[in-house]
Amino acid sequence: MTNPPLSSQKASLERLFNPESIAIVGASPVEGKLGRAVVDSMIAHGYSSERLFLVNPSCVENEKEETGKRYYRNVADIPEIPDLSVILIPAQRVLEATKECFEKGIRKLIVMSAGFSETGSESGREIEKELLSLAKEYDARIVGPNCLGIFDNVSRVDTFFVPPSLIHRPQRGAVSIASQSGSFVGHFLDICYSEKLGIARAITYGNRVDVDESDVLEYFAQDGATRVIGLYVEGVSSGPKFLKALEKCSESRKQVVALKTGKYASLEGAVTSHTGALAGSYQAYRAVFKKFGVLEVDGIEKFIDACKALTMLPRAKGKRILILGHAGGLGLTLADNCISLGLLVPQIPLDLKEILGPDLLSFASLSNPVDLTASGTDEQAELVLGKCLTEPFFDMAIYLALWGLPQNTEKIGGIVARTIAKSSKPVIVASLATQSCIERGHVFEDLGVPVFFSLERAAFAAHCLARPKDSDQKLECK
Amino acid sequence: MTNPPLSSQKASLERLFNPESIAIVGASPVEGKLGRAVVDSMIAHGYSSERLFLVNPSCVENEKEETGKRYYRNVADIPEIPDLSVILIPAQRVLEATKECFEKGIRKLIVMSAGFSETGSESGREIEKELLSLAKEYDARIVGPNCLGIFDNVSRVDTFFVPPSLIHRPQRGAVSIASQSGSFVGHFLDICYSEKLGIARAITYGNRVDVDESDVLEYFAQDGATRVIGLYVEGVSSGPKFLKALEKCSESRKQVVALKTGKYASLEGAVTSHTGALAGSYQAYRAVFKKFGVLEVDGIEKFIDACKALTMLPRAKGKRILILGHAGGLGLTLADNCISLGLLVPQIPLDLKEILGPDLLSFASLSNPVDLTASGTDEQAELVLGKCLTEPFFDMAIYLALWGLPQNTEKIGGIVARTIAKSSKPVIVASLATQSCIERGHVFEDLGVPVFFSLERAAFAAHCLARPKDSDQKLECK
Repeated sequence: MTNPPLSSQKASLERLFNPESIAIVGASPVEGKLGRAVVDSMIAHGYSSERLFLVNPSCVENEKEETGKRYYRNVADIPEIPDLSVILIPAQRVLEATKECFEKGIRKLIVMSAGFSETGSESGREIEKELLSLAKEYDARIVGPNCLGIFDNVSRVDTFFVPPSLIHRPQRGAVSIASQSGSFVGHFLDICYSEKLGIARAITYGNRVDVDESDVLEYFAQDGATRVIGLYVEGVSSGPKFLKALEKCSESRKQVVALKTGKYASLEGAVTSHTGALAGSYQAYRAVFKKFGVLEVDGIEKFIDACKALTMLPRAKGKRILILGHAGGLGLTLADNCISLGLLVPQIPLDLKEILGPDLLSFASLSNPVDLTASGTDEQAELVLGKCLTEPFFDMAIYLALWGLPQNTEKIGGIVARTIAKSSKPVIVASLATQSCIERGHVFEDLGVPVFFSLERAAFAAHCLARPKDSDQKLECK
Repeated sequence: MTNPPLSSQKASLERLFNPESIAIVGASPVEGKLGRAVVDSMIAHGYSSERLFLVNPSCVENEKEETGKRYYRNVADIPEIPDLSVILIPAQRVLEATKECFEKGIRKLIVMSAGFSETGSESGREIEKELLSLAKEYDARIVGPNCLGIFDNVSRVDTFFVPPSLIHRPQRGAVSIASQSGSFVGHFLDICYSEKLGIARAITYGNRVDVDESDVLEYFAQDGATRVIGLYVEGVSSGPKFLKALEKCSESRKQVVALKTGKYASLEGAVTSHTGALAGSYQAYRAVFKKFGVLEVDGIEKFIDACKALTMLPRAKGKRILILGHAGGLGLTLADNCISLGLLVPQIPLDLKEILGPDLLSFASLSNPVDLTASGTDEQAELVLGKCLTEPFFDMAIYLALWGLPQNTEKIGGIVARTIAKSSKPVIVASLATQSCIERGHVFEDLGVPVFFSLERAAFAAHCLARPKDSDQKLECK
């Protein structure tokens, strides 16, 4: 048997992301054990404890009386066929457990255990080969080994063993994440929580003996819960398969945001010892990303910002940006940040200035970046934003929101939200990472308007929404 | 009379930054008034209320009984000659008040009032000319108009009228700031507070009718409280004077970090309407910065990060960096961030690996970026950091500190601090801006070790400490 053709990946991975029942092989009632943490995560995340089947022969006796949970001696004893099995036992027993699962009729496996090819050991590589051949023999799919598995805000699956007190789980949103690295995704989710970026699904496949980035990309391309796909990639397992998967994403108009690491030859050794992979030529990746319209980012903050902008704001039809705020120097800094990313900060046409002028303070500046001054009002901000975005001179705006000044109240949140809705153009809220600004952020965030807590990051969000064809092109300084 | 020669700027500005008594012209007891806010700021910041002389003719009667503060009808009535006068009255009365101050014998003025050349009005420009000619006539110095004045952690002067609840004041440190823009510095100080970057002095000079960036740079060059000088500049008032001032900074080995805004020709109008200045050619600035070793940054976060690294850590003697952490994927991302800034991430020599290997976990990776794994201990981190930095193979290290893992305790703060002290090489602590990581940051910050809460920012800090001769040079990707 061979892997199913790409066109049926959606069906092939459906029960992996949306299982109606799960066996946890290596579950444990002991605090501090991996097998306990995963069960806790699943239940804390809202997966029905009645649909979990805990397997651990040493816990069968009397365990139900002590912990309220029933344990099974082995997978065969489970009274139904679970959709998915999560495997948490030491590497040397994983092959046997896999066979038991397949013989039971389970067809999706997540092997979280480490100690395989990433250690460089021959036996690790051998076990991986046998896992793959078993998967083919049974027409089953295996995620891992050496991975954190799945965190899913749609199906409520959560195999991440780090408790929510250390890695806060983000709310539901339209971004789905595919990653080789578990530590990357774990911390990424925690940042998403702080940054209020919603996530649909996240999967880590570690040594990816079977399910790889291409399988997952294709699944997300067809997944109704996913609008933007975030990809963390050290290297791909198959180039041609990757190209086909990106084509599917492009066809289904799902924007892929990619963070490619291990770009440099000197890091080859570190990449290999991490998930047993080779990083490959970075130039080849760049070419592929460009061909399929993948937005490549070069750091975690930009990864977050791109996903936030692309799922929470409308796209801009061009690069012309209005910058509006109550502070001159910060507006100029922001304008420079925008222009250096290839955006345009054109002047407001004279006739529009004449219309706006009488309603603004005499010492306000209508030169873009517009400075309403510290005494500028909500109404003035609404007027300038509304007029400039309904007219065809600007493709988007950045509103520089700082701590509340007396004339600049919490009403500004609604003003920005309404301007976005009316104009169908993005208004990016830029702020600073200070205590008062972060507290003030809820004025926007409560209405679903994202806030970018640094000028550089707000400019990058604007850049993502404008996406000039050649995003590397920068304007020449005078 | 002419301005004093540059060499005597230290004496000329000494009483401006360190006044033993201050007249506040336009002081007020009324909540919400500028003249009240400035008095409150001064006292909250620890400036002696007995050394403040409040001037406001309409508050003289009975005011002492009501507010406990004595008001003077005019400057002439003050029973001594204050070192400094802060002027907060409307623009049209500023000239008269200036004359009164000079006739009294006061020789340093901060004119905070707005409504001068920045409005584009002819009368505003005229008043500024007369202010300058008065300053020359009396051999006095004027800061402003249209500025926030001075915030000083040495002398405890604080003329910023925004209360500490909105703009938190940072602790004392070795960075001093010179800025045309008041809004920039106000928010910058607030970020410094959040980021735990200490500040010595900060001055904003707005329309800079007299005291300008060059005067201030030269003062800071000779100021014992200042080690790093942060400059926010839209345009300089005199090119030759600026070059001389930078030369003084260079001679006194004070590192200047500069954020130049209004870089692009299209923003000329916005610059002029902000502080009445012209931005000038950016290419000329770049050449000057390069000549005098000024570290140019292109955004506020980098401004903060550069100042933090340069005042809180030793400089690195080269570009070779060891990256050490407990997470593979994040280490790789960080390594890419470093290399893209021109740093080197070389491998640990084989013989050193052999010395270290037996003390690490069998599945740890000694390929740089080193991954001690989630089970790696404090002692292992100490061993690798210590051995690698005492040997001549690395010029600095980045330690990737995340939330605490069981084997990775709060002791790591002391380990990093001791390694820096012993090796005289910088260890940059990289973390992420998540709730748990930020809470964990105190483990380092309490010991004076700065934390950079994003991988990109940590890499930039390393770049600042290494300062390759041509900092724009980037390594070619393979």
